[in-house]
Amino acid sequence: MITVLFAANAERWAQYEAPLTAALDAEGLDYRLIPDPSDIAPEAVDYMVYAPLSEVQDFTPYTRLKAVMNLWAGVEGVVQNPTLTVPLTRMVDDEGLTQGMVEWVTGHVLRHHLGMDAHIVNPEHVWDHSPPPLSKDRPVTILGLGALGQACAAALTRLGFPVTGWSRSPKSVEGVTCHHGPDGLDRALEQARIVVLLLPDTPATRDILDARTLARLPRGAVVINPGRGPLIDDAALLAALDEGQVAHATLDVFRTEPLPADHPFWAHPRVTVTPHIASETRPDSAARVIAANIARAERGAPLHHLVDRDAGY
Amino acid sequence: MITVLFAANAERWAQYEAPLTAALDAEGLDYRLIPDPSDIAPEAVDYMVYAPLSEVQDFTPYTRLKAVMNLWAGVEGVVQNPTLTVPLTRMVDDEGLTQGMVEWVTGHVLRHHLGMDAHIVNPEHVWDHSPPPLSKDRPVTILGLGALGQACAAALTRLGFPVTGWSRSPKSVEGVTCHHGPDGLDRALEQARIVVLLLPDTPATRDILDARTLARLPRGAVVINPGRGPLIDDAALLAALDEGQVAHATLDVFRTEPLPADHPFWAHPRVTVTPHIASETRPDSAARVIAANIARAERGAPLHHLVDRDAGY
Ligand SMILES: NC(=O)c1ccc[n+]([C@@H]2O[C@H](COP(=O)([O-])OP(=O)(O)OC[C@H]3O[C@@H](n4cnc5c(N)ncnc54)[C@H](OP(=O)(O)O)[C@@H]3O)[C@@H](O)[C@H]2O)c1
Ligand SMILES: NC(=O)c1ccc[n+]([C@@H]2O[C@H](COP(=O)([O-])OP(=O)(O)OC[C@H]3O[C@@H](n4cnc5c(N)ncnc54)[C@H](OP(=O)(O)O)[C@@H]3O)[C@@H](O)[C@H]2O)c1
Repeated sequence: MITVLFAANAERWAQYEAPLTAALDAEGLDYRLIPDPSDIAPEAVDYMVYAPLSEVQDFTPYTRLKAVMNLWAGVEGVVQNPTLTVPLTRMVDDEGLTQGMVEWVTGHVLRHHLGMDAHIVNPEHVWDHSPPPLSKDRPVTILGLGALGQACAAALTRLGFPVTGWSRSPKSVEGVTCHHGPDGLDRALEQARIVVLLLPDTPATRDILDARTLARLPRGAVVINPGRGPLIDDAALLAALDEGQVAHATLDVFRTEPLPADHPFWAHPRVTVTPHIASETRPDSAARVIAANIARAERGAPLHHLVDRDAGY
Repeated sequence: MITVLFAANAERWAQYEAPLTAALDAEGLDYRLIPDPSDIAPEAVDYMVYAPLSEVQDFTPYTRLKAVMNLWAGVEGVVQNPTLTVPLTRMVDDEGLTQGMVEWVTGHVLRHHLGMDAHIVNPEHVWDHSPPPLSKDRPVTILGLGALGQACAAALTRLGFPVTGWSRSPKSVEGVTCHHGPDGLDRALEQARIVVLLLPDTPATRDILDARTLARLPRGAVVINPGRGPLIDDAALLAALDEGQVAHATLDVFRTEPLPADHPFWAHPRVTVTPHIASETRPDSAARVIAANIARAERGAPLHHLVDRDAGY
């Protein structure tokens, strides 16, 4: 029998208990599922389902641990923990997390493309009959071509947008112009009327949009950040907004969350703040992903969605 | 040699002259293209490219006319003209008109689905972390399953929305729950969290959303109208908005356009007015559609996109 510890918090447990039990049962595993770290001796745990900010911060006593499965896509809260030496997986949840991100990104790209805000807020009741260009004339660049970036690229491509993507390693994605590495970044930004950030938070991606790179965008570009707050140098973005280099920023993630009341993003007329809702892990589908990965490990197959500790994601 | 008369206005001619010439040339037709009705004897005209509100309102003198090709999808401005007895075609322009409509409809469906307005206008700077449901849990109904309705249904289906459609004749569209005829309307409305109107303006469709049918929608549904203004009973919609039966209406078309300054839609907090920009015929692609249809007629093939004069569209 294997022991699976749910090391998030009580509120999550309420959401995950039933789906995780169902998913582990469906895999035919012989297991016990423990809701809280204080309910079990660390040395008895085989697998840990983990959310950053969990009370487990020292993995040393978990001597029998085979893997830690992160509930979220972003692992910046755990990947640098020096006591964690066993394999760590991040969440790739196509039906839930990825689908939600596709909806949010597609919606906000179309919002900016169609110039909706001028209609939603139109106190002078201006009737300005100027149809927007077609999507084929609105190049979109996605920084990050992982699980989320590729799914968003596919959805935007299907809607007719010319999509350019940027990743660390070289990529070939159908219908997407791909650049990679530090040298490819400027080329990825040069044509972007809308740029979407779907990179992880790592030392190499921090401040990836700063004064220098924001200046590479065509004047009047729009920035959409559903990735992570530290990807953007906030002061540089505010300066670019104020001087018109960036026309609008729609931001879902921030260096501090909730976004502090005195942060200038809140009151800026060309910033839209969304409260980290771009996407969420959905318990039903995420539980199936975790259970399937545990089952793989138990039959000796390599884990899916393994984090590369050196790269930081 | 055939004579093609461009019977719109001078501003349109400036947009269409080059694309129409190129498209007629590409079809290998032997033609002359006349920019204005006053430049030609009516009895010399073979084909007329037409925009409603054209100065040509009496077709009687056009004794040799073989067909009239409307530049727009909606033909309500010409279909009832008793002097028009030759075939009339409406515009079906996949690359331009249809594509633009897909972008507008998809964008506004996602806007309402994601609850964007609460983030775009958030004067209290409320951080309310409540991710929206996934598209699979947001049924959308499209009234009208023609060129535009079907294209929008396909785009929304690809994004995961359960789509129901309604048409005059029975239809079978992959991935779409289809209803038809007066009896099918209530069933089409019953589940709709968002309803999109893509019907033509005919005697049978006028006021299709009135007090009775609005009451069939689930409470809190959203109405999106990129079809035609007369499809909605304005007073009934305002009443439904005020009592909460309809949560929001996004309207692109109106009984009078531009929407008069004193119309209550302008100031209503739960109405978004867009200035008839949902989609436009695009000269390049539309010119190719018209030229191809003229070439068909010349070689004796049946015209595409023929209007059914009795049905009114
Ligand atoms: N706002 C929200 O609600 C929300 C929800 C979920 C996730 N997220 C964020 O979205 C991020 C992406 O998720 P994912 O599942 O798509 O991750 P992923 O599959 O690991 O993809 C990450 C992508 O970023 C690229 N990348 C990483 N470091 C890079 C560098 N230094 N230079 C260039 N490219 C680099 C990777 O390149 P390679 O392909 O070469 O590895 C990969 O294409 C997560 O890390 C998380 O921060 C936000
Ligand atoms: N806002 C804009 O910018 C804009 C731009 C372009 C077009 N439009 C509007 O969009 C409308 C639709 O264009 P389209 O090209 O899709 O037209 P279409 O191909 O002729 O399709 C019309 C659809 O409406 C259905 N219909 C007509 N009368 C009906 C009735 N009495 N009961 C139930 N269904 C009925 C038809 O049913 P059947 O399939 O059974 O015939 C068909 O599915 C145009 O007429 C125009 O008014 C607006």
